[in-house]
Amino acid sequence: MKVAILGGDGFCGWPASLYLSDQGHDVTIVDNLSRRAIDAELGAESLTPIASIDERLAAWKEVSGKEIGFVNLNVAKDYDALLDFLNTQRPDAVVHFAEQRAAPYSMKNSTTKRYTVDNNTNATNNLLTAIVESGLDIHVVHLGTMGVYGYGTAGMKIPEGYLKIQVTSDEDENGNATKPHPIDLEILYPTNPGSMYHMTKVLDQTLFAFFAKNDELRITDLHQGIIWGTTTEQTARDERLINRFDYDGDYGTVLNRFLMQSAVGYPLTVHGTGGQTRAFIHIRDMVRCIEIALENPPERGDRVKIFNQMTETHRVRDLAELIGKISGAEVAYVPNPRKESAENELHVVNETFLDLGLQPTTLAEGLLHEVEDIAKKYADRADTSKIPARSLWTKQNAAGEPELQK
Amino acid sequence: MKVAILGGDGFCGWPASLYLSDQGHDVTIVDNLSRRAIDAELGAESLTPIASIDERLAAWKEVSGKEIGFVNLNVAKDYDALLDFLNTQRPDAVVHFAEQRAAPYSMKNSTTKRYTVDNNTNATNNLLTAIVESGLDIHVVHLGTMGVYGYGTAGMKIPEGYLKIQVTSDEDENGNATKPHPIDLEILYPTNPGSMYHMTKVLDQTLFAFFAKNDELRITDLHQGIIWGTTTEQTARDERLINRFDYDGDYGTVLNRFLMQSAVGYPLTVHGTGGQTRAFIHIRDMVRCIEIALENPPERGDRVKIFNQMTETHRVRDLAELIGKISGAEVAYVPNPRKESAENELHVVNETFLDLGLQPTTLAEGLLHEVEDIAKKYADRADTSKIPARSLWTKQNAAGEPELQK
Ligand SMILES: NC(=O)c1ccc[n+]([C@@H]2O[C@H](COP(=O)([O-])OP(=O)(O)OC[C@H]3O[C@@H](n4cnc5c(N)ncnc54)[C@H](O)[C@@H]3O)[C@@H](O)[C@H]2O)c1
Ligand SMILES: NC(=O)c1ccc[n+]([C@@H]2O[C@H](COP(=O)([O-])OP(=O)(O)OC[C@H]3O[C@@H](n4cnc5c(N)ncnc54)[C@H](O)[C@@H]3O)[C@@H](O)[C@H]2O)c1
Repeated sequence: MKVAILGGDGFCGWPASLYLSDQGHDVTIVDNLSRRAIDAELGAESLTPIASIDERLAAWKEVSGKEIGFVNLNVAKDYDALLDFLNTQRPDAVVHFAEQRAAPYSMKNSTTKRYTVDNNTNATNNLLTAIVESGLDIHVVHLGTMGVYGYGTAGMKIPEGYLKIQVTSDEDENGNATKPHPIDLEILYPTNPGSMYHMTKVLDQTLFAFFAKNDELRITDLHQGIIWGTTTEQTARDERLINRFDYDGDYGTVLNRFLMQSAVGYPLTVHGTGGQTRAFIHIRDMVRCIEIALENPPERGDRVKIFNQMTETHRVRDLAELIGKISGAEVAYVPNPRKESAENELHVVNETFLDLGLQPTTLAEGLLHEVEDIAKKYADRADTSKIPARSLWTKQNAAGEPELQK
Repeated sequence: MKVAILGGDGFCGWPASLYLSDQGHDVTIVDNLSRRAIDAELGAESLTPIASIDERLAAWKEVSGKEIGFVNLNVAKDYDALLDFLNTQRPDAVVHFAEQRAAPYSMKNSTTKRYTVDNNTNATNNLLTAIVESGLDIHVVHLGTMGVYGYGTAGMKIPEGYLKIQVTSDEDENGNATKPHPIDLEILYPTNPGSMYHMTKVLDQTLFAFFAKNDELRITDLHQGIIWGTTTEQTARDERLINRFDYDGDYGTVLNRFLMQSAVGYPLTVHGTGGQTRAFIHIRDMVRCIEIALENPPERGDRVKIFNQMTETHRVRDLAELIGKISGAEVAYVPNPRKESAENELHVVNETFLDLGLQPTTLAEGLLHEVEDIAKKYADRADTSKIPARSLWTKQNAAGEPELQK
């Protein structure tokens, strides 16, 4: 299959590109390297020493004998180049990772808020509009987030994208009183996003629904949990292929941050009570899910296929305790910089991927390996001043110091 | 009240600005005159001869003794200027009309699709982000559309923004079978927009919900029907104050198009069977609704207030027949360039405005006046080659010629 990977230089896109190339697919990466520019802007760096994109691709060729193409363009701004790329390359599928993906970064200040909305909305809209203009029948696989399920569990398991509801009205359409008559609808799960970043994924899903309906584009939206782990079979083959590992207050996701904090002897900082329940998936399962999604496209004219891409849910404080137990690190509770419920339940349907053959890597298996092979190995590269989450959801949240200042 | 009117040079914004100024409010218009530029791009012109913004404002001062300020800036692009404007002007309220508002234009080609999404999403996001950055407590009144109510009437009257639903699950949150237990939620009415333009209003409403929740901004979203009529008490006071009247295939809305077609002896072109039911409101009622919305802001921390701003619903073919009967014009059925259901029902709750004192102008009262005073008076300015709707929702729709070619 000919696959273009938008955002293929990123944390998910890079291992996904290598994996698909390794499976024999013809892969081209499209990326404007904006994530590396943001690292520079934040004065932060991947814990792991990532090679330049050219070096990465050369190393992959050396190690695997396979070639991955690379096009440097801004999906959100360089529309003509994107259209031209699609017309020339004629990919069977596009995997769309090319968005600003950190919730804290999206809430930092007016510049990052505006960048996140502008970049993510225009990237998605440009891609869809260009596919329509090209007239090609390209399957789009997009990375969404569990964060679009706004109302959380609300007493049920969260379904895969669509919710069957009943409206109970005691008036008919003319406003005449009747006995209550139930009206059945199946709708996109109601949204209630928790950050500007999460909100852009709601905007995306609105765009997808429209293009699937109006233009009969084939689209799969993967509502992904938080990735943990760093290494896949392919990235481990050569140090120049190593994947990025973010631990800074903006891009570091909770589990990877804990692993790194434990490796450098920094207390595991839990926001608020740590009662937030989150969905997780290992990076090796993520790349496999992308492959499964590519192999199971919707038909033309179908509604958007939505899969929940997660394998386990955990409460944040339980994760901290678990890693504390393994590593001996202490757990520190700090004020929550986010505006969110202190405690939430999360129960998620994820049958589609399991039915299609996904075999989850469990936390129990994978954790120790990550601590030893990545977090400890590169601990000397850590700049602990970058760990605190300094991005506040509202000015009111500034009242408490958001994190331990070390 | 100090009020900024974003998009105050447009079809709705101009009469709203004059009306509010006339009521004694301190009004400033913010507009980048993009609508006039699009007229030039399309080679189309308002049927009525509209004066330049400077001439308009000078005429208003002459006629009323009142001054309306004007700032030329692009709300979607000139963020710093917008923030500066808010900080200097410190308005109590902002009325936000500044969007690309024609569905056919939004579906014309990839450039207009992308412009519509980029302009509308960034305009709204810039405004909200700038208000948060300013720290000011500014009430935002936004013009949305009835088109966000995606599933239409679905057997009930469409409520004002929020829908009470029941989810009936026969599993509990742990996936254990139970007897069905209903879960009550109140959600934004599910959306299913019919064009890129309508979709941007769904994106807007997602942005509003987020900023109302996270930043406690006070926001009112008016889900407006199709405006008909041209003249308000204020625009009628001097010919230099005249409002725009669009009749071209992109910007001309259905009822105004029929009026103008009948005035120039062009058949009333009905798309498809004309079975589409639409909501309408007269332009004089629109300006009054804006005033009512300004007088009834939500409290800080409230969810977005949503009002349905419409007074009547009509089936398109009934309107054509009605105007045909008044004017003697013939009715012509042409293939529908849009992708939509041939026939739909529409029943809408609009009690909030009625309860707050709106006294609707009925079609029966207003129609004849519009035909005589506007459509006939300026009929010699009409370029009938601009009447056909040439914007196709999909390439398949190109199969039939969309409109009579005269
Ligand atoms: N990492 C996670 O835990 C996680 C969880 C859920 C969903 N996701 C989603 O998966 C996707 C990838 O996430 P990631 O962790 O790999 O992020 P990342 O920031 O590491 O990678 C994103 C890549 O996209 C590129 N990019 C961004 N905007 C672009 C543009 N306009 N044009 C071209 N390239 C652009 C960046 O340069 C970067 O290489 C995102 O959409 C994210 O929302 C990630
Ligand atoms: N006309 C209708 O029947 C109708 C019906 C429902 C809703 N609405 C809504 O009411 C609002 C106004 O509609 P209208 O008919 O007056 O449209 P219009 O095009 O006549 O007016 C819009 C005005 O906004 C300005 N504008 C657009 N983008 C801008 C930007 N980025 N920066 C500054 N100014 C900008 C334009 O120059 C124009 O003067 C729109 O949001 C529209 O969606 C209109």
